[in-house]
Amino acid sequence: MIIYGDVDSGNCYKIKLLLSLLNINHRWIHVDILNKDTQTAEFLSLNPNGKIPVLVLDDGRVLSESNAILGYLAEGTELIPADPYMKAKMYQWMFFEQYSHEPFIAVARFINKYLGLAPERIEEYHKLQPKGHKALSIMNKALVEHDYLVGNKFTIADIALYSYTHVAEEGGFDLKLYPNIQEWCQRIQKCPKYVSMVE
Amino acid sequence: MIIYGDVDSGNCYKIKLLLSLLNINHRWIHVDILNKDTQTAEFLSLNPNGKIPVLVLDDGRVLSESNAILGYLAEGTELIPADPYMKAKMYQWMFFEQYSHEPFIAVARFINKYLGLAPERIEEYHKLQPKGHKALSIMNKALVEHDYLVGNKFTIADIALYSYTHVAEEGGFDLKLYPNIQEWCQRIQKCPKYVSMVE
Repeated sequence: MIIYGDVDSGNCYKIKLLLSLLNINHRWIHVDILNKDTQTAEFLSLNPNGKIPVLVLDDGRVLSESNAILGYLAEGTELIPADPYMKAKMYQWMFFEQYSHEPFIAVARFINKYLGLAPERIEEYHKLQPKGHKALSIMNKALVEHDYLVGNKFTIADIALYSYTHVAEEGGFDLKLYPNIQEWCQRIQKCPKYVSMVE
Repeated sequence: MIIYGDVDSGNCYKIKLLLSLLNINHRWIHVDILNKDTQTAEFLSLNPNGKIPVLVLDDGRVLSESNAILGYLAEGTELIPADPYMKAKMYQWMFFEQYSHEPFIAVARFINKYLGLAPERIEEYHKLQPKGHKALSIMNKALVEHDYLVGNKFTIADIALYSYTHVAEEGGFDLKLYPNIQEWCQRIQKCPKYVSMVE
């Protein structure tokens, strides 16, 4: 299989981390968003939405949306609960990630890390802060009771939320405010075959 | 089971439509967002994110995020493909809905329908238009080849995307530009036990 992605994008790093944890053979093709590689006719034929990551299977079938790719690759493994309610809780956290976490934390990180807090986006950056902190507070509270987001089992919901959370400080979010999140990050980093974003 | 929701919210109507199609007994408790019913201590104890819909099962277990609720309620039915790739495509469309469709089409509808194009949000409304049209174009193109979003089988991805799409005109999006979407909407409206948003 081929993954089109940029490992410095949290949405792509999710896939890199899962592939490593599950030891799945693949070819990674680097795509540069800032160079508009995702807007070429060739790339848009793979994903008309012009976003990474994209998975292309050996038979040519294509899948986009990072969390849908996680679900596909982890199918049948212990990273997806068998119990229907627990599986739904896992997806609950994954939809939370895309709607109430990524649009604030990933975008603040992008404005800070890649655009150097460009003056024309500084107002937006400040508006993202309370929304990102709300997402982190909700996670921190959930992690009081459990080691992982879905009870005490590590699932792909943890991978989905870990990805941008563990680099949230690059978006101006101080993780020392969230001790349960910090412990959870350390727990994930100790998983066998864990791979960091920068490696 | 109990659903907390407002049927005029597309995210809640998704659940109303699925419950009707599957003939599932439930109690619906109306929640008024504009009255801040979702921000009370009682409601936040159900969903710390302060959003509807919320499902409470008979044993008290709680589930939020509309698309996770759809997945839970449709588990084991024909509305979720058994094939792992097709199921992943279904979730691909559902994540697309929450990230690349709802934030533009639902918000434009809210500003137009509920806030009467309030002057302080008119600039935002206009910025949402091209983004919403991009989402509709992607759907319209996908529906050239298939009757439904995931091949030729009706799935919960269709329910998730139908919900705000069929009322996109209330957000200023002319659906006559998207004939495949119009035909798809008519196809869904002919399903046995279909229930409209306003009924």
